[in-house]
Amino acid sequence: MKLHAVIPAGGSGTRLWPASRAARPKFLLPLPGPRSMLQATVDRLLPLVPAENLLVVTGSAHAVAVARQLRELPEENIVVEPVARGSGPAIGLGAALVARRDPDAIMGSFAADHYVVDSSAFRRAVAVAAEAASRDYLVTIGIQPTYAETGYGYIRCGSVMFERDGLSARRVEEFKEKPDHETAERYVQSGDYLWNASMFVWRARALLDAIRDLLPDVYEPLMEIAAWWDTPQRDEVMERLWPGLRDVTIDHGILEQSSRVAVVPATFGWTDLGDWHSLAEVLATVEGENVAVEGAHIAVDTSATLVFGNGRAVATLGVADLVIVDTDDVLLVCHRSRAQDVRQIVQLLKESGDSRLL
Amino acid sequence: MKLHAVIPAGGSGTRLWPASRAARPKFLLPLPGPRSMLQATVDRLLPLVPAENLLVVTGSAHAVAVARQLRELPEENIVVEPVARGSGPAIGLGAALVARRDPDAIMGSFAADHYVVDSSAFRRAVAVAAEAASRDYLVTIGIQPTYAETGYGYIRCGSVMFERDGLSARRVEEFKEKPDHETAERYVQSGDYLWNASMFVWRARALLDAIRDLLPDVYEPLMEIAAWWDTPQRDEVMERLWPGLRDVTIDHGILEQSSRVAVVPATFGWTDLGDWHSLAEVLATVEGENVAVEGAHIAVDTSATLVFGNGRAVATLGVADLVIVDTDDVLLVCHRSRAQDVRQIVQLLKESGDSRLL
Repeated sequence: MKLHAVIPAGGSGTRLWPASRAARPKFLLPLPGPRSMLQATVDRLLPLVPAENLLVVTGSAHAVAVARQLRELPEENIVVEPVARGSGPAIGLGAALVARRDPDAIMGSFAADHYVVDSSAFRRAVAVAAEAASRDYLVTIGIQPTYAETGYGYIRCGSVMFERDGLSARRVEEFKEKPDHETAERYVQSGDYLWNASMFVWRARALLDAIRDLLPDVYEPLMEIAAWWDTPQRDEVMERLWPGLRDVTIDHGILEQSSRVAVVPATFGWTDLGDWHSLAEVLATVEGENVAVEGAHIAVDTSATLVFGNGRAVATLGVADLVIVDTDDVLLVCHRSRAQDVRQIVQLLKESGDSRLL
Repeated sequence: MKLHAVIPAGGSGTRLWPASRAARPKFLLPLPGPRSMLQATVDRLLPLVPAENLLVVTGSAHAVAVARQLRELPEENIVVEPVARGSGPAIGLGAALVARRDPDAIMGSFAADHYVVDSSAFRRAVAVAAEAASRDYLVTIGIQPTYAETGYGYIRCGSVMFERDGLSARRVEEFKEKPDHETAERYVQSGDYLWNASMFVWRARALLDAIRDLLPDVYEPLMEIAAWWDTPQRDEVMERLWPGLRDVTIDHGILEQSSRVAVVPATFGWTDLGDWHSLAEVLATVEGENVAVEGAHIAVDTSATLVFGNGRAVATLGVADLVIVDTDDVLLVCHRSRAQDVRQIVQLLKESGDSRLL
């Protein structure tokens, strides 16, 4: 079975400043490297999704960089949004374009800037999700939580629909917003909750039906855009209809509202790499306590320190729990416990009116 | 009274790596800036010592940089050693050249890479030292210790010779090597000990007499070199005699052996800026707890941190007591308590056989 897939490539990644910048968002960066997160996402899918079935939806500001990074993709598979309207319209347009080729096609949708440790296990989960999707469910892949993370949404599982290949498909009872720490602890203890990783598999037609029922104001313009797609009028129609679309995520607009949602619980090692600390955590499992990406690290009496380099040598002496990010025009030295607060620096820079470092 | 002076400009400053490098020693660096330590040393002396009376003795590797930094000095006042032989021969040659112009001249000798907070108070101390020197003493300026530093040598004071301008000249009873911490505490408590800052004032002829008596093997070649100095044979004589000179410091070879040594106790704020921590200490008294030299520092929840920059912005978040040194090819992040151990990194680099970062 050859799957289709759409990868919405947007967002900036403020907490990964100064590597992540307005003009160089997280998905274009080599985190953890050497390939960019977007390239790694494509690499992970290619054994299941041939390049001609893979659509990337990105903003006009990043179209050139995406085209350069994904040379294996046919030109027409890189879809450029005139303005960002959230994952709902982006994935919906992808589904409409897939359905034009094959209404029964099963397609996945995967974020461009998440990290997966075990790609084979990831693909096994996608295959089981595709089987559930063939039964006309909207299927999400949920991650077995390993700790009480408050930065993710959660999914409450229901009864088992079927088991296959050591995995199962279960009904979804409820989506939960990011919880407080106490609630997150309870979720993890119960064993009934999974992290929502925004990974979806469904029939293209099943998603479009759901959009028609749940987001009718989005459905009509999307279908009109798709109808004109392969004509000289594409740009004119896109320009006219796209900016008027409602800005809505696929999670909130569809998954949380639908009654036909299933989930495949999985354990392939996943993180959204939202900040430097989570990157350091992921890399430390592979490389040991000090980690250097793209730079030589001369470490003396140094522990639990991540160097995200720029080709220069970085020497550290008598330090612990630091993140050091070296870029052409700015250097960040941050305690790992404060990784979430990197956006404070970005905010300071915005308020100062100096946009050069943004 | 117009004084003469000689400034031996040598040494590397291993503990100030990576700003200080083999090809760019400490005295050429803008510590704390904007002028280099050598330039600041000259600036500090010029009100007492006209440029034509000021000699700098430096190694061949640094002659060009010194010439560029000290454009106000006549060309013949920059003396280049073919090989380094310590401060004894360097200052001795300076004295021999001064004595050729005026045997009664009073001259000072000052390190090229020490830092003085109050230049006016420094010059007042030099003036009192010059008066003691006119009585044919070898005179040193000793610094009232402000804490139990174990990295400096100490001078034990004897009886007062005279008082002038709120200062005094006293006999020196003994020079002491770098003490352990307990001994240093005792020295500071007693009030009889001063830091040896290697600042000297004497008649040129008095120093040469002391060299003749205490280092006769150095005296003869030095006088021969001085005799040929203003002839076309200078280079040939220098090349023949200089490399054979004993490598000896003026402190150990002369001051510690002589019975006619006086000291002027002084309190003008002095440090040898031997490591990044001491630079941070000095600058914090002027600028507050976070200090940035040659770089914009974006500090969020940051304390007691020194940024020695390279023009790039440096952002810090949730860190304390760090030294961050940014250079073209290498970056150092070091805890201030480990500033003395920066030489360990230099040693590591030497052992690795990679000299590019030395």
